[in-house]
Amino acid sequence: MTENYDPAIQIAQKLESPSVASFVYHRQLTIEWGQCDPAGIVFNSRFFEFFDTSTWMLFDASLGVKPHQLAETFGVIGIPLVDARANFLKPVNFGDIIDIASRVAEFRRSSFDIEHLVTVGGELAVEGGETRVWAARDKANPDKIHAVTIPPDIIAHFSHG
Amino acid sequence: MTENYDPAIQIAQKLESPSVASFVYHRQLTIEWGQCDPAGIVFNSRFFEFFDTSTWMLFDASLGVKPHQLAETFGVIGIPLVDARANFLKPVNFGDIIDIASRVAEFRRSSFDIEHLVTVGGELAVEGGETRVWAARDKANPDKIHAVTIPPDIIAHFSHG
Amino acid sequence: MTENYDPAIQIAQKLESPSVASFVYHRQLTIEWGQCDPAGIVFNSRFFEFFDTSTWMLFDASLGVKPHQLAETFGVIGIPLVDARANFLKPVNFGDIIDIASRVAEFRRSSFDIEHLVTVGGELAVEGGETRVWAARDKANPDKIHAVTIPPDIIAHFSHG
Amino acid sequence: MTENYDPAIQIAQKLESPSVASFVYHRQLTIEWGQCDPAGIVFNSRFFEFFDTSTWMLFDASLGVKPHQLAETFGVIGIPLVDARANFLKPVNFGDIIDIASRVAEFRRSSFDIEHLVTVGGELAVEGGETRVWAARDKANPDKIHAVTIPPDIIAHFSHG
Repeated sequence: MTENYDPAIQIAQKLESPSVASFVYHRQLTIEWGQCDPAGIVFNSRFFEFFDTSTWMLFDASLGVKPHQLAETFGVIGIPLVDARANFLKPVNFGDIIDIASRVAEFRRSSFDIEHLVTVGGELAVEGGETRVWAARDKANPDKIHAVTIPPDIIAHFSHG
Repeated sequence: MTENYDPAIQIAQKLESPSVASFVYHRQLTIEWGQCDPAGIVFNSRFFEFFDTSTWMLFDASLGVKPHQLAETFGVIGIPLVDARANFLKPVNFGDIIDIASRVAEFRRSSFDIEHLVTVGGELAVEGGETRVWAARDKANPDKIHAVTIPPDIIAHFSHG
Repeated sequence: MTENYDPAIQIAQKLESPSVASFVYHRQLTIEWGQCDPAGIVFNSRFFEFFDTSTWMLFDASLGVKPHQLAETFGVIGIPLVDARANFLKPVNFGDIIDIASRVAEFRRSSFDIEHLVTVGGELAVEGGETRVWAARDKANPDKIHAVTIPPDIIAHFSHG
Repeated sequence: MTENYDPAIQIAQKLESPSVASFVYHRQLTIEWGQCDPAGIVFNSRFFEFFDTSTWMLFDASLGVKPHQLAETFGVIGIPLVDARANFLKPVNFGDIIDIASRVAEFRRSSFDIEHLVTVGGELAVEGGETRVWAARDKANPDKIHAVTIPPDIIAHFSHG
């Protein structure tokens, strides 16, 4: 955040011109008492729980594979998180109904970015992002884990229409 | 993260050339069973809990004011978080003893950045950051909260030596 | 638990002969990665989060009042928890779909017991209980909170048919 | 809780006449912002996190074995929780310094009870309890887990003096 930061411009850019036409997974949650802090708003770490689960559900919706079967289905150890970030634009309160819209913003060779937009009543409240890798055990040395090439047919499942 | 991302270079830069000579607050934690996920490593949202608490403790250590007395002591409503981020470089396991080193990386007029470096056995495992604002209620309209100028004597407490 | 404890008998008693014919609120959840511990099962404290939210939702479903409006609607400060307990009969795993059935097991003058039964595929996995009070501020001394008589028309909303 | 429940009598009994003279493990925590709910007090599920960790630390202090080495050191899969309970006598606030006193209240053949007393400024605030089992994999059928006899020399480590 700089002193001249204008969230409205950023939001308009996010919503109007997604850089990749990708499948968007939506889910709705009602904010619970135990997710809020003494200010009566969602404690920041809870959003990172929401994002993690939304990513698993986005993969489930795109690939048709349940989260707990992802690893064995694709011969990976999972999709470890290497970077997480959130920009808190408006407080989210106890009892608010939020919508989380999640999509893969970019696939690279062995890593990808997920974007999570949390809205309340149509207004953007939190903008989150995750970078994850497609990771497998080294065949020669099973104690080592490394990023591997994401199969093109997996990427294809995240495209629109 | 890009495909050519080299964490070693970034870490060296972080540790060797801090942009501001500021007070660093350290604390040690032993990773608990309930903080770990089925992969046996700390679940990502827990680090954001650690960062939040370390920021409160950094302010306590620098200003000599307990977290729950910060708001009334300085006539603010607190130091709301507007941005949080973490870069996960190495997994942190159940039973690991971590050191969290926290400092204000930059003060601006009404906002500031906190840097949190999590190390295990001297190696950087997670690099976190928060951007917060110094916030007060609007005198004319107490329902509104806005960022206000951080008093220079508060900033002075975070300088070295 | 004693060495001769037989959960099957207890469960049969619970399911077949509820002591009070009260409204039962059901909800389904899919267990998330971040809710599980290194053994791959739900970490115990998460069930107490589930119970808390189910109680709020049971009150919402019975009274038609949203959780965040409960206090002001009824002139109370809320329904503080004075006792919580859980009996873990079977592990609940990542990806499991659970049903939580919640009901008021007993209303007393100013306190009440809620029972929460967590089942997976029809089998009882966790049996939880909460004791809460109907609490208001003292009119003479607003810093004091005490249990007050639960209005009969509120209790009536929790009866069957 | 009944209407005539008198916590003062119960507390006096707990503190004055422990039924077993066992090693008591103490630790102190300062309540964090993110552990509190909109009422400004510790959210109930957090106490069950505290209890779980205190149990691991009690075992560490008594046996000299780190939590993450307990399973392999003793040939068990761990000490699974079969029952947890807490009685909330006084609210615990943001910034409060709590003391958690934990001890094994009773060892049985293959299960045991742990008692956790949370005090603030010397006053009992929460009284918690856990029942756990000493559990191992079945030698004939490694998918099955069952409670096994607790070795007497392990129990001996929890005695006083």
